[in-house]
Amino acid sequence: MSRRVATAVVGATGYAGYELARLLLRHPGTERPVFYLRETNGAKCLTEVFPALRGWGDAPVRKFTPEAVASQGAQVAFLATPHEASLEYAPEILKAGTRVVDLSGAFRFRCGETLAEWYGLKPPEPALLQRAVYGLPELYAAQVKDAELVANPGCYPTAVILGLRPLLEAGLAARGRGIVCDCKSGTTGAGKEPRRETHFCEVNENFRAYKLFSHQHTPEVLEHLGLGAGDVMFSTHLLPLSRGILATLYAWLDAPATGEDIEALYRKYYAGRKMVRIWPAGRLPELQHVAHTNFCDIGFALDHSGQRLMVVSCLDNLGKGAAGQAVQNFNLMTGIEEAEGLL
Amino acid sequence: MSRRVATAVVGATGYAGYELARLLLRHPGTERPVFYLRETNGAKCLTEVFPALRGWGDAPVRKFTPEAVASQGAQVAFLATPHEASLEYAPEILKAGTRVVDLSGAFRFRCGETLAEWYGLKPPEPALLQRAVYGLPELYAAQVKDAELVANPGCYPTAVILGLRPLLEAGLAARGRGIVCDCKSGTTGAGKEPRRETHFCEVNENFRAYKLFSHQHTPEVLEHLGLGAGDVMFSTHLLPLSRGILATLYAWLDAPATGEDIEALYRKYYAGRKMVRIWPAGRLPELQHVAHTNFCDIGFALDHSGQRLMVVSCLDNLGKGAAGQAVQNFNLMTGIEEAEGLL
Amino acid sequence: MSRRVATAVVGATGYAGYELARLLLRHPGTERPVFYLRETNGAKCLTEVFPALRGWGDAPVRKFTPEAVASQGAQVAFLATPHEASLEYAPEILKAGTRVVDLSGAFRFRCGETLAEWYGLKPPEPALLQRAVYGLPELYAAQVKDAELVANPGCYPTAVILGLRPLLEAGLAARGRGIVCDCKSGTTGAGKEPRRETHFCEVNENFRAYKLFSHQHTPEVLEHLGLGAGDVMFSTHLLPLSRGILATLYAWLDAPATGEDIEALYRKYYAGRKMVRIWPAGRLPELQHVAHTNFCDIGFALDHSGQRLMVVSCLDNLGKGAAGQAVQNFNLMTGIEEAEGLL
Amino acid sequence: MSRRVATAVVGATGYAGYELARLLLRHPGTERPVFYLRETNGAKCLTEVFPALRGWGDAPVRKFTPEAVASQGAQVAFLATPHEASLEYAPEILKAGTRVVDLSGAFRFRCGETLAEWYGLKPPEPALLQRAVYGLPELYAAQVKDAELVANPGCYPTAVILGLRPLLEAGLAARGRGIVCDCKSGTTGAGKEPRRETHFCEVNENFRAYKLFSHQHTPEVLEHLGLGAGDVMFSTHLLPLSRGILATLYAWLDAPATGEDIEALYRKYYAGRKMVRIWPAGRLPELQHVAHTNFCDIGFALDHSGQRLMVVSCLDNLGKGAAGQAVQNFNLMTGIEEAEGLL
Repeated sequence: MSRRVATAVVGATGYAGYELARLLLRHPGTERPVFYLRETNGAKCLTEVFPALRGWGDAPVRKFTPEAVASQGAQVAFLATPHEASLEYAPEILKAGTRVVDLSGAFRFRCGETLAEWYGLKPPEPALLQRAVYGLPELYAAQVKDAELVANPGCYPTAVILGLRPLLEAGLAARGRGIVCDCKSGTTGAGKEPRRETHFCEVNENFRAYKLFSHQHTPEVLEHLGLGAGDVMFSTHLLPLSRGILATLYAWLDAPATGEDIEALYRKYYAGRKMVRIWPAGRLPELQHVAHTNFCDIGFALDHSGQRLMVVSCLDNLGKGAAGQAVQNFNLMTGIEEAEGLL
Repeated sequence: MSRRVATAVVGATGYAGYELARLLLRHPGTERPVFYLRETNGAKCLTEVFPALRGWGDAPVRKFTPEAVASQGAQVAFLATPHEASLEYAPEILKAGTRVVDLSGAFRFRCGETLAEWYGLKPPEPALLQRAVYGLPELYAAQVKDAELVANPGCYPTAVILGLRPLLEAGLAARGRGIVCDCKSGTTGAGKEPRRETHFCEVNENFRAYKLFSHQHTPEVLEHLGLGAGDVMFSTHLLPLSRGILATLYAWLDAPATGEDIEALYRKYYAGRKMVRIWPAGRLPELQHVAHTNFCDIGFALDHSGQRLMVVSCLDNLGKGAAGQAVQNFNLMTGIEEAEGLL
Repeated sequence: MSRRVATAVVGATGYAGYELARLLLRHPGTERPVFYLRETNGAKCLTEVFPALRGWGDAPVRKFTPEAVASQGAQVAFLATPHEASLEYAPEILKAGTRVVDLSGAFRFRCGETLAEWYGLKPPEPALLQRAVYGLPELYAAQVKDAELVANPGCYPTAVILGLRPLLEAGLAARGRGIVCDCKSGTTGAGKEPRRETHFCEVNENFRAYKLFSHQHTPEVLEHLGLGAGDVMFSTHLLPLSRGILATLYAWLDAPATGEDIEALYRKYYAGRKMVRIWPAGRLPELQHVAHTNFCDIGFALDHSGQRLMVVSCLDNLGKGAAGQAVQNFNLMTGIEEAEGLL
Repeated sequence: MSRRVATAVVGATGYAGYELARLLLRHPGTERPVFYLRETNGAKCLTEVFPALRGWGDAPVRKFTPEAVASQGAQVAFLATPHEASLEYAPEILKAGTRVVDLSGAFRFRCGETLAEWYGLKPPEPALLQRAVYGLPELYAAQVKDAELVANPGCYPTAVILGLRPLLEAGLAARGRGIVCDCKSGTTGAGKEPRRETHFCEVNENFRAYKLFSHQHTPEVLEHLGLGAGDVMFSTHLLPLSRGILATLYAWLDAPATGEDIEALYRKYYAGRKMVRIWPAGRLPELQHVAHTNFCDIGFALDHSGQRLMVVSCLDNLGKGAAGQAVQNFNLMTGIEEAEGLL
């Protein structure tokens, strides 16, 4: 790490943007990042947007243009922008020779029609989609390393896919019975824009399901689990807390297993993967263990028959579910140690 | 309601006891209840235990003996006691001619062995268990009316059974695929005794599953849904809020249904039942709608294929899940209008 | 209470409006209230605004006009409207012969200029202001009984004035040293309109002071304490909870007092006032004791010198701080027992 | 920083201990710290106490003896132990040549009698008390650098002293009128031991004052403000959140000041002090800005007369109020840059 990498962050005004700024400002492998906003409103420093960042050193703000990013000589640009903006900016930035980590949903699907159907957006050129790598390092590290365009995964899919993939690859789940993914998220996942649904008094001392059968993360989950819509029920709920996602995942097994089997399966699958922590049989992870970290914690419970399995997978939706994972991808792309700046 | 009913409350020092006291103190159909404690510690009035009850009128505290309850002439005694105490007190109180509503798990099972297996308790006499009525008024109102001993249901089972029973009775669920009951509860459900797991800083900004495959409410759910252990996965989670349970219930359907079908099924099943509120297709209930009430709110979502169903059932664990339901049972037992004192 | 009183509620779409609707729908002394909205948006029943009110019986919604209220024959109309709307509606409704309880700040000041200065509003006719009674029943019950127009007090002033008035009337406070009123409120006090400051993630796990030296409740506090601006420091803070205000009030005493003196002073001052609960020396009230009630709880601590006093006064900002107090005023105005419908 | 400093942590099982472990495990200037417990209960690694620390690298646990610490060759030992244990351990560790940062209250007072009076503890030898330095680096950095024994300040005093010291040193406050310090703390400040007062349901949706006129931090505040007991009212309240302290500080000024005066005074006083952030006139700091940081944020409001001042001072009670400040002291003691490992 003799030379520090020049980075740019585009659109860092939301909660994931804040977390990304915080991580990059203390990352030992980057030059001081430059922050680009569509509308700077006269701001010269990101502390004007996030007072909590005062004292962390210089965080210069500039008006975004693809040329500005290119002329800065950034090797990697992070897009913490809405889907629509990412669709517009990513090709321009790539053209200028800067690699991109996009935190939106714009480039997550092999097939453009999925974006049209679930996001109501005009998909990017198929050639561009083909170049995009789904940035889940525990599954696709090799591809991420060389990627020009990394599509940083959604928060729910990261928890669900990491929680189920070992089981499904091993062929243990009785697919004929279906899989249930009951997910609960903290409210930073709903964004920073004030809305009725995320007004304090509508979330505090409240709990509710939302977007049942219609959440835009559904196709992402199905694609990377290799399952059809009819085989899975994926639900999302809003927790009265700020940070964290916990997914409770239900599968019937074709043949009886033991707790040791399941623990060994997961440990082997994630061997050497620092950012996934497997819990021993009989102990369950909790949101508080992963809040403000980049870890995904996975534990499970098996009934005495050995054929009913509940897997609990949890992470910080702003950490491993967004900004932390983006930095993890960045580390891989630039040859920095994968966990650098994330502990 | 010309004559008010004399009531006794035994053991009202926990959260459900508080709620029960609050409900009875303002119930227009009861005489002022008398509160019996095993250890009064010199307290003469329940406000010494619950300062928040000051100003609600006289709430006399006496030392519990079955004879004291009998000599008071109470027609109905509520037991807000631990399972073990209820097992001991209920027969004594019944013998003295006072009817009993027991809020513990002691008398909820037809079969005494269930109590031994799941609660580790010596079951009561079979004859007594036969006399006990499971006090879920929406299913068993007729039996409750004449019951001498009502076993007030558990909080989770009330939400789950009310949420699934219409579907299962109609035979719509594809039982071969299994049913998932993912339940989340507020922390008053864990009792008032300080423990590590319910220390403020271990619950706040946290969320976790607990007692997977081992929660003592499991057999209650199975018995009243008429399902075997292998057909159901029932999980429980702890929410960082005080009051409320929300159950997300998953079923695959044998044949495609429409939202209108499902809504009509539930509306018909609960026609005339004031304490269950069915939500129209496309709208989901939330915990905040039922907190501090005796309602169980039920809504649902059906996927476009009409074969995957999610039912959301929620209630206040201290209201319809405990003290409110006890008062509802009391109303039925004494010929008072079912919702009296509960709105 | 042989005859029930006809009531109208104007503008019940906020949190205080919800609480008022909830209280009136179960009030034994009122006919079923009629709810008037400026814009009904086609709503026929208040449950379309507040789903949590389903099951509480009919809550008819009509488009507001003064004539509609008059023709309904309402004896009392509650205005749960913004200040500006109250300024416009109250005279019209009064003219039609209906008495008014206004929950806004529009009629709280003897002097119209105060409204101009602190609220930026054109004050009402002086004659109308003269007719308005400040509806703090513990101080002004006699005037409230005969009032045509009751100005329901602000939430902060209710807590502060009730907490300090006995001390100040007794002349015990060393006024030359000044009085500090440090107030903390739950977030329902900030209204139902989504704003950045009351977005869940900006309130949860946060605490902050706001509007220091500029809160519009300041002049209300000064007027009813009989103090000048220079003698008092009044601050307001936002708590990460939904309901409740707690004021910590600081005074130096001219001469040493004992705890018994202070307790006796407060007990005597509020003798017979059901809605104020004085705590014994050495015990302090808590927000949880008053949430969802109409009580104002007052306790205190005195140092060993007997010359430094802290008074703690707390209430539910939607109860005694708004809707509950409005109902208390209504009870007084119509000859109903003061606490009716409030326990 | 060519050579890393060997450190020991004694007693790290509470919340401050956790935070200290987290900070030291990622501190670039320390060797991997060794954790000493009185009772290891067989634990070999701190992750057995704090599962959230898994993945942060080796955190060896050993049974505490002064000899063990000495033989390890630790240059600095942190005591995250109860007052009593610190009184016992500190002299033993010092004797073995290891410098000590003590997070308890044991060595905070010049005068041993204060410890006896406010903590009910037998004070240490006067000679030892004389050697102890009060570790508030913004005031006493020079003494901290050479200290053998640093008494890490209490959380409340850190916020109050930093918030008032510039004002008092400048002689602006009208001392004859007295100063009010109204403090509010998150619940980690009350420790990790489950108690009734810190049970989730007794803190959530609640707010209360506690230990009025009797909080053990009172003498610490008075000593470092140079004020007598009669001049100050210091109160403490419990917030329904996990981390953070906010103090609202009230002073009348002898002569009118402007916002610019006050801001300039504070900026000058804390010039070059990285860990104190002064807010510009008209903006107030919030707990969320300092949670999970080592900053103390200070802002203020002045009324239009320029003679009534409210200062808001806030920090994270586990950061700048405990573990973070301990690391800051450690940095100073060992010649490491003051903010190292704290951003």
